[in-house]
Amino acid sequence: MSAPLQIVALLFPNVTQLDLTGPAQVFSQFPDAEVHFAWRDRNPVPTDSGFSIVPTATFLEAPQADLLFVPGGAGAFELFEDDAALSFIAEQAAGAQFVTSVCTGSFALAAAGLLNGKRATSHWASLHMLEDFGAVPVRERVARDGHIITGAGISSGIDFALALAAELYDDRMARQIQLYIEYDPAPPFDAGSPFRPEADQQSVKERIASVTEHRSPMVARAAQRLRTES
Amino acid sequence: MSAPLQIVALLFPNVTQLDLTGPAQVFSQFPDAEVHFAWRDRNPVPTDSGFSIVPTATFLEAPQADLLFVPGGAGAFELFEDDAALSFIAEQAAGAQFVTSVCTGSFALAAAGLLNGKRATSHWASLHMLEDFGAVPVRERVARDGHIITGAGISSGIDFALALAAELYDDRMARQIQLYIEYDPAPPFDAGSPFRPEADQQSVKERIASVTEHRSPMVARAAQRLRTES
Repeated sequence: MSAPLQIVALLFPNVTQLDLTGPAQVFSQFPDAEVHFAWRDRNPVPTDSGFSIVPTATFLEAPQADLLFVPGGAGAFELFEDDAALSFIAEQAAGAQFVTSVCTGSFALAAAGLLNGKRATSHWASLHMLEDFGAVPVRERVARDGHIITGAGISSGIDFALALAAELYDDRMARQIQLYIEYDPAPPFDAGSPFRPEADQQSVKERIASVTEHRSPMVARAAQRLRTES
Repeated sequence: MSAPLQIVALLFPNVTQLDLTGPAQVFSQFPDAEVHFAWRDRNPVPTDSGFSIVPTATFLEAPQADLLFVPGGAGAFELFEDDAALSFIAEQAAGAQFVTSVCTGSFALAAAGLLNGKRATSHWASLHMLEDFGAVPVRERVARDGHIITGAGISSGIDFALALAAELYDDRMARQIQLYIEYDPAPPFDAGSPFRPEADQQSVKERIASVTEHRSPMVARAAQRLRTES
């Protein structure tokens, strides 16, 4: 691996910002690493949470990534029609040691042709649709298939990034960062996935139905295009 | 409470960005709420993690908060010498239903004169110094004293914000948001606070020593000034 370690994260409009900012907090503690937020230009990019984040590099300026990272959100599905973004992902992935995502960032990896036959995870409400891209959806908080590492929904990015700390450095580094960010979680409820006892099952059904209705046509088109091209 | 609920978060240079972005992800799901990131001007504000966030309002533009929220980080201690920021905090707090912080944001609340005699928490490495301001430091992930609600270090902001969801709306709302953000944490180690079995105790000692050396003179000065003024 090169020194410094080059981490390139994709930053796009309507990103679910915690997908990106959770891991970014962990990455900021990696010794001898540089983190880049790449987008087509350096104008502030609106997130899903009412504020904007400024890219640190354009697609042309970003170095070759050792670790490529794609967060998720509604905007990840808009990337399906964005050739520049999909090409950036595919070209960066070809030279990266690790190709990674959190939440529905895995759909952008899939649309870039990177998940065919690969075990991958995603947000619980979208996970089933990964199959359309020929991926093998797995219900894991952090899933690994060779050099592809994917995290589940939104807040899982913290677990994902600590797993990367252990992989890229060692367990001690991961423990030190976990301590620093005081990641000793104490959720007020046991409701954090569809399979937890306090999960709101009506919410589960409604969100899966809504996500499937809105996103499955986009997924089907992108998967079709990928099959035609390859 | 007014409708929409007005949430005003302070955004300042060298903020520990997850202190702010973790809660912001939860706040983005509050129904009928507006979230403002306030700073002296609207230029992008550099965070601790190598990227900048754009304020959505200046101190003059921000509405009166129903919920005032101050994140932490090295920059929170720089606010001690920033009269405009401390006045903004104190004036907003006077009209707010809830006055809140995560991590060392509690030190900014304290420097603005808001924690005298109050139970409050902070990042584990800085917590002991809250006493200099006349606050009562408590080792809790989310601490409440009347209308003042404080969260512990960095990642605790997610637990903090879910507790606020339950307080401002109801338990069902908190559970629904927890489900949406898939907050079913699975840290790879049990190392997230000094009191956990896998915590790196050398890190604990070194960080407390370093933080105390760098910050206690600033805390002592600010606390002295507060006593002189009151």
